[in-house]
Amino acid sequence: MGKNLKALRQEIDDINLSILDLINKRTLLLQQIGKLKDEYSMEYFDTEREAKMLENIFNHNRGPLYNELVKDIFNSIFSSSLKYMGITREKKLLVSSKSQEKFKTIREIFDLPDDSPIIVAGPCAVENIEYLEKIARFLRDKNIRFIRAGAYKPRTSPYDFQGMREDGLKILHDVAKEYQLYTITEVVDTRDVELVSKYVDVLQIGARNMQNFELLKEAGRSTRPVLLKRGISATIQELMCAAEYVVVNGNRNVILCERGIRTFETKTRNTLDISAVPIIKKETGLPIIVDLSHSLGRKDIIKSIACAVLAAEADGIMVEVHPYPELALSDSKQQLNLEEFDDLLSSINRNVNVLK
Amino acid sequence: MGKNLKALRQEIDDINLSILDLINKRTLLLQQIGKLKDEYSMEYFDTEREAKMLENIFNHNRGPLYNELVKDIFNSIFSSSLKYMGITREKKLLVSSKSQEKFKTIREIFDLPDDSPIIVAGPCAVENIEYLEKIARFLRDKNIRFIRAGAYKPRTSPYDFQGMREDGLKILHDVAKEYQLYTITEVVDTRDVELVSKYVDVLQIGARNMQNFELLKEAGRSTRPVLLKRGISATIQELMCAAEYVVVNGNRNVILCERGIRTFETKTRNTLDISAVPIIKKETGLPIIVDLSHSLGRKDIIKSIACAVLAAEADGIMVEVHPYPELALSDSKQQLNLEEFDDLLSSINRNVNVLK
Amino acid sequence: MGKNLKALRQEIDDINLSILDLINKRTLLLQQIGKLKDEYSMEYFDTEREAKMLENIFNHNRGPLYNELVKDIFNSIFSSSLKYMGITREKKLLVSSKSQEKFKTIREIFDLPDDSPIIVAGPCAVENIEYLEKIARFLRDKNIRFIRAGAYKPRTSPYDFQGMREDGLKILHDVAKEYQLYTITEVVDTRDVELVSKYVDVLQIGARNMQNFELLKEAGRSTRPVLLKRGISATIQELMCAAEYVVVNGNRNVILCERGIRTFETKTRNTLDISAVPIIKKETGLPIIVDLSHSLGRKDIIKSIACAVLAAEADGIMVEVHPYPELALSDSKQQLNLEEFDDLLSSINRNVNVLK
Amino acid sequence: MGKNLKALRQEIDDINLSILDLINKRTLLLQQIGKLKDEYSMEYFDTEREAKMLENIFNHNRGPLYNELVKDIFNSIFSSSLKYMGITREKKLLVSSKSQEKFKTIREIFDLPDDSPIIVAGPCAVENIEYLEKIARFLRDKNIRFIRAGAYKPRTSPYDFQGMREDGLKILHDVAKEYQLYTITEVVDTRDVELVSKYVDVLQIGARNMQNFELLKEAGRSTRPVLLKRGISATIQELMCAAEYVVVNGNRNVILCERGIRTFETKTRNTLDISAVPIIKKETGLPIIVDLSHSLGRKDIIKSIACAVLAAEADGIMVEVHPYPELALSDSKQQLNLEEFDDLLSSINRNVNVLK
Repeated sequence: MGKNLKALRQEIDDINLSILDLINKRTLLLQQIGKLKDEYSMEYFDTEREAKMLENIFNHNRGPLYNELVKDIFNSIFSSSLKYMGITREKKLLVSSKSQEKFKTIREIFDLPDDSPIIVAGPCAVENIEYLEKIARFLRDKNIRFIRAGAYKPRTSPYDFQGMREDGLKILHDVAKEYQLYTITEVVDTRDVELVSKYVDVLQIGARNMQNFELLKEAGRSTRPVLLKRGISATIQELMCAAEYVVVNGNRNVILCERGIRTFETKTRNTLDISAVPIIKKETGLPIIVDLSHSLGRKDIIKSIACAVLAAEADGIMVEVHPYPELALSDSKQQLNLEEFDDLLSSINRNVNVLK
Repeated sequence: MGKNLKALRQEIDDINLSILDLINKRTLLLQQIGKLKDEYSMEYFDTEREAKMLENIFNHNRGPLYNELVKDIFNSIFSSSLKYMGITREKKLLVSSKSQEKFKTIREIFDLPDDSPIIVAGPCAVENIEYLEKIARFLRDKNIRFIRAGAYKPRTSPYDFQGMREDGLKILHDVAKEYQLYTITEVVDTRDVELVSKYVDVLQIGARNMQNFELLKEAGRSTRPVLLKRGISATIQELMCAAEYVVVNGNRNVILCERGIRTFETKTRNTLDISAVPIIKKETGLPIIVDLSHSLGRKDIIKSIACAVLAAEADGIMVEVHPYPELALSDSKQQLNLEEFDDLLSSINRNVNVLK
Repeated sequence: MGKNLKALRQEIDDINLSILDLINKRTLLLQQIGKLKDEYSMEYFDTEREAKMLENIFNHNRGPLYNELVKDIFNSIFSSSLKYMGITREKKLLVSSKSQEKFKTIREIFDLPDDSPIIVAGPCAVENIEYLEKIARFLRDKNIRFIRAGAYKPRTSPYDFQGMREDGLKILHDVAKEYQLYTITEVVDTRDVELVSKYVDVLQIGARNMQNFELLKEAGRSTRPVLLKRGISATIQELMCAAEYVVVNGNRNVILCERGIRTFETKTRNTLDISAVPIIKKETGLPIIVDLSHSLGRKDIIKSIACAVLAAEADGIMVEVHPYPELALSDSKQQLNLEEFDDLLSSINRNVNVLK
Repeated sequence: MGKNLKALRQEIDDINLSILDLINKRTLLLQQIGKLKDEYSMEYFDTEREAKMLENIFNHNRGPLYNELVKDIFNSIFSSSLKYMGITREKKLLVSSKSQEKFKTIREIFDLPDDSPIIVAGPCAVENIEYLEKIARFLRDKNIRFIRAGAYKPRTSPYDFQGMREDGLKILHDVAKEYQLYTITEVVDTRDVELVSKYVDVLQIGARNMQNFELLKEAGRSTRPVLLKRGISATIQELMCAAEYVVVNGNRNVILCERGIRTFETKTRNTLDISAVPIIKKETGLPIIVDLSHSLGRKDIIKSIACAVLAAEADGIMVEVHPYPELALSDSKQQLNLEEFDDLLSSINRNVNVLK
C-alpha cells in the first residue's frame, strides 16, 4: 500500500472521467429510446423499468459500496437523465406552467370585454332578499359583474348559522338574474354539486374543503367554473395539486383564491401570503384572485392591501360587502358597508387607471 | 370645583358600593326568573331580551359615558349573571365535560374486558389480501383487537395511489372476520358512509376532513363509532366543535385522535401536541388516542413517544404496521415492520405492567 | 314568589337604569379627578388605587354574586372609564400613533430631497473591497443613497462565515465615503455598538436580535438611526414593543423592517406579511421598509412583490445585491446580480412614475 | 438507428454495471486515502478537492449531458462515498451523537448521587428575600437540589418589571447558600456573563437569546454550566447549532431545555414539542430537560405532562413555583404554589418509583 495521496487522487480523477464518459453514452442511448417512445406514444417515465434496473444492479453489486448508497447514486443518474429529456420525475401537473396546457383567463371564461381587475363582492351569507337586492343594485351601478353569497355555510360550531341552503340558492339566483350578475356560492357536499350548479354560475370550494378530494372530483365533472380557495394551512404546492383534481376530472375552468394562512400573528385574522400571487402566475396557467376579507379580518387596511394585491398582478379581488354589517349573521366585523366598499372601489380605480 | 382628590375618591367608593348593591339585587331577580324558566323549560340565554335591555339602556343614556362603553359594562354584567346561573354565553357543547352528558369509554363501546391501553394497528392502505392477513394474524397473536387500513386514500396528488375502494373494504372485512378483529377505515365522501358502515366497525374521519361538516353530520347519523382525527392545523377547540357535529346528530360514540399539527419543525413529519391529550381528557367527556405514525413520520423515537403518550393518560395509540414497509404504496418510511412493532409492544407492556 | 316573568323583567330594567345612572355619575367624578391629576401631573392610571377599590368592594359584598364575577364587572367599569378618559389600560407606547409623539420620516432623518421610495441595497456580507466598490459605483450611478453589507454575520452554525468584523466595517466606511452613500450594517453585541457607530450611519438590529433587549437599550443610547428587523416569529405587537425599547432609551430614529415570518410554506424562504406594512403605518408613527431578499429567498418574483410592497405604502425596500452572487459566501441564491437589480429598478421606476 | 427498445435497454444495463464497477473501485481508492489521512490526522472532507474534481470533470465534458446535471450526479457520488466513510457532508457538530465526543450527564456535572429525575424549581423572578427563602426551605425539605429565579428579566414591553439585577443575584446567592441549593439564573448581555458567573452555578440562556451568538460564545468561555433554552420558533437543528457555539468555545457542560414552540394553538401558551426529547437524546450527546411552566402556561395539566416528559426519557423538568403566585410580578398564572408543587412531586415520585 505504498501509493501516496497524489497518486490515489489521480486514479480517482481517472475514474471520474470514465464515469463521465459512461453517463454521457447512457444519455445518447436514452435519446434513441426517447425517439422510439415518441413514435409509439409511450410514457417516458417508467417506474417499473427503473425498479428492474436497480434490481439488476443490486444483483451484481459486490461492494464495498452498500446497495443503499449505490441506489442513491443511480437515482441521481436516473433523475438527471430524465431532466435532460425534459421530464420531471413526478408526472407533470396539467395546471403547471411547464405543461403544454392552456387555460382561460377569468375574462375569457365569462366573455367579458375590458381588462380592469375582476371584483367579486357580496355578503358572507344569503340572509334575505332585501339585503341581497340592495347589494346587487349597488354592484350593477358600479359595473361590477360578480356577486358572492353563501347558502351553505361551513361553520366551526354546529350551533352557528348554517345558511339558508336551497332557499338561499333561489334568492341568489333570482336577484342576480334581475341585476344581470354572475353568481358565486360555496358547495360543501358531493351530493349538492348538481343542485348548486342549477342555480349559480361559479362553484366555490372553500378553504376547509380544499383537500376534500371527492368534492374536487365532483366539481371536476361539473360544467360550472370552480373558484378554489387555499386551505388555511395548505402550501401553494398543495393548492396546485387540489386544482389538478378538478382539471384532471374534466373541468378546465379553475380560478384559484389566496385567502390567508394560519400563523401566530393576531393583528390580522389570517396572514395574507402575497407571494402566492406571483408564484401561482409563474408556476401555473391558472388565474388567481385574493379574498381580502378573510385574509385580513379587519377593514382599516383593506385599501392598501387591495392595491398591493393588484400591483402583484392578481387577476382580481373578493371582498365581503353587506348593507348593514353590524346586523350580519356571520363575520360581521370584516364585512364592508356600501359606503366603505365605494371608497375601496375609488382607491382601486385611481390606481388602476394610472397603471394602464 | 374645590373638592380634593380624597373626597372625590370617597364619592367614587360610595358609588362602587351602590353598583355592587344593584348587581346583587339584579342577581336575586335573575334567580327568580331562572326558577320560572325551569318550570316552563325555557332557555336561560336569550339574545333578543339582551338586545332589548340594551336598547332601553341606550335610550335613557344621557352621558357622559358613550353608548359603546356603556355596552361594554352591561355586556360584562349580563355575562357575569349568566355565569352565576351556570350558563356560559355560548351554548354549551354536549361533548364538554361541563355538560351533564356521559360518554362511553372505548372499552365500553366495544365491551372489552381488561383495561390495558387500546392499540390500533395496520397498514396505511389495504393493498392485497396476503399482506393484510399477515398483519391480522400477528395482531390476533398479540391479543390486539383493532386493525386499521385505508380503502379510500385521500392523497395530495391525484396521481398517487387512491386506494382499492369497495374491493379494499371487502378484503378488510373478510380478513378481520377470520381473525376476530374490529376494523377501522377512513370514509371520505358523504355518499360512502352507508356503504363503508356495512363493511367496517369504526368510521374514521381523517385530518383533511375534520371540518368537512356534511361528512361529520352524516357520520353522526350512522350507528358506527367514529374515530375523528384532528386536522393538521386545527385547534383543540375546533376539534371539540367537530366532534359536537357528530354527537349532536345522534352518534355519541366518538373517539378523538391527536395526530400532530403543522409547524416549522422538520425533524418530525408533524409536531405531536401532547398537551392535547390531558386537555381533551379534562375538557371533554370523550376518549382520545394518538396516531404515532402520522405525528412523527419516523420510527426511531416511536417507543419513547408511545410511553409518553400513555403516561399522559391517552386511552390508546394508533400505529402503522406493514409486513414489508419498503414495498408499501404509501407512507413507506413511517410504517413499522412486524419485528419493530413487536419491539414497540414489549416496551409498552413493560411500562404498563409496571404502572398498574 | 308570585311575580311573573314580565314583572321581574321590569324590575331588572329599572335596576339597569339605576346602574346606568351610577356609572355616568362615576364618570363625572373621574373627569374632576382627571383635572386634578393634570394640575399635578399625576398618572391617570393607578393600579394600586384599583386594587384598593376592589378590596373595599369585596369587603362589602354580601352576595349572591361571587367576588370573582363582581371583579369582572368592576374591571369592565374601570376599563370603560379609562377609555372614556382616553387612556388605555397599558401604558401607552411612545411609538403608538395614539401617542402625541412625532417621529421623523426616513427622508427627514437623512435630509433627502425627493420623495421616491427609499432603496437599500448591497451584498449580504462585506467580503472584499473590489466587490463592494463595484456595487457602490452602481448604486451611485443609479442615484441610490443607501448601501448595506454585513460585517458581523449571525449564522446558525458556528462553522459558517462569521463576517470580517472591524476590517469589514473599515472597508464599508471607506467605500461608502468615496461613493457618498449612507451605510447600514448589523450590530450583534452590546459591546460593539460604540465601535460600529464610529464607522456606519445606521445600526441594523437583525431578526434574531429583535428581542435582545440589552442590545436594543444600547442602540437606544446611540445617536445613530436604528433599522430594526422583525423577528421571524415575532408578532407586529412585539415588534412595536421592541422599537419602544430603543425610543424610550432616547433614540427616536427607528426604521422598522418587515422581512417575512416563519410558516409552513416552503416555496418562499419566509412568508412576507404584507399586512404588517399598513398596520405599522396606521398604528405607529415609525417608517417601515421591506427586506425583499430575506422574505422571499428567491429572485423570480421580486419585481411583483416590490411593486406590491410600495403599493401598500411601505417607505422603501431593502434588497441583497452582489456582483457575482454565485461566488458569495452566504445567501448566494437570493442575491441579485447587477443586471437583475437594474431590471428591478426599472420596474419600480415605471410604477412609481406612473403613481405620482 | 434500427435498434429496438430491448437492445437499447440492454446497452443501458451494461453501462449501469460499468458505472457500478467504477464507483466501487472509486470507493476502494477512498478507503486507502482515508487510511493515509488517518495517519496524518487530516480532515476527511475537503471542499477544495471536490471543487477541483468537478472543475476537471467539467473541462472534459463533451455532452450531451449538461454540466449542471453532471454536477448533480457527481455530488451524489461524492456524498455516497463520504457516507460510506462515515462522514457527513456538513462538518460534524461536536454535540452530535455521531461525533466521538462524550458529554457529562447533569448528575455527573454536579456530582449528584442517585438517579431520580432532576427537578429545577423556583419563582419566575427574584422579588424579595422572604419569598425566595420560603421556596428554598421547601426545596431543601423535598430534597430538590436546583433553584431557579430570574434577576435579569427579558420582557416584551420596556414597561414590564425588568428584574432586580445584581441585587437579585445577591439574594439568590445568599439564600441558595443557606439552603445548599444549586442556582440557575438567566444572563442576557455579554457584558454580564462574568458578573453573573460570580453569583450563580448555572447560566441560563433564554429562548429569546438562543440565537444571540455573541452571548453563546461568551457563555462558551465561562466555566459555569449552561442551560440553553430552545427559541420559540427554533428548529431542533438550530438548537443543536446554538449548543455547538457554546461547546466549540470551550464549555462542554451544556444542558438543553425544551420549552414549547409558537404555533396557532391557544389552549396552551406554547406547544410543547415532546418529540424533541427523544430526538435530542438520540442525535446529540447532551442532556435535556423540559420547562413545563412556559410550555403549558396553565397548571391543570402539569402532572400529566410531567409524567409524559419523564416517560419520554427527559433528564429532568423545570417548573415555576412561587409562595403566592397571585401576587407575583410576572407570569402569575402559570406559577404553582407550594401545595400544588408538592402535589406534582407526589405524582412524579409515584411514577418514578414504579418505573425503577
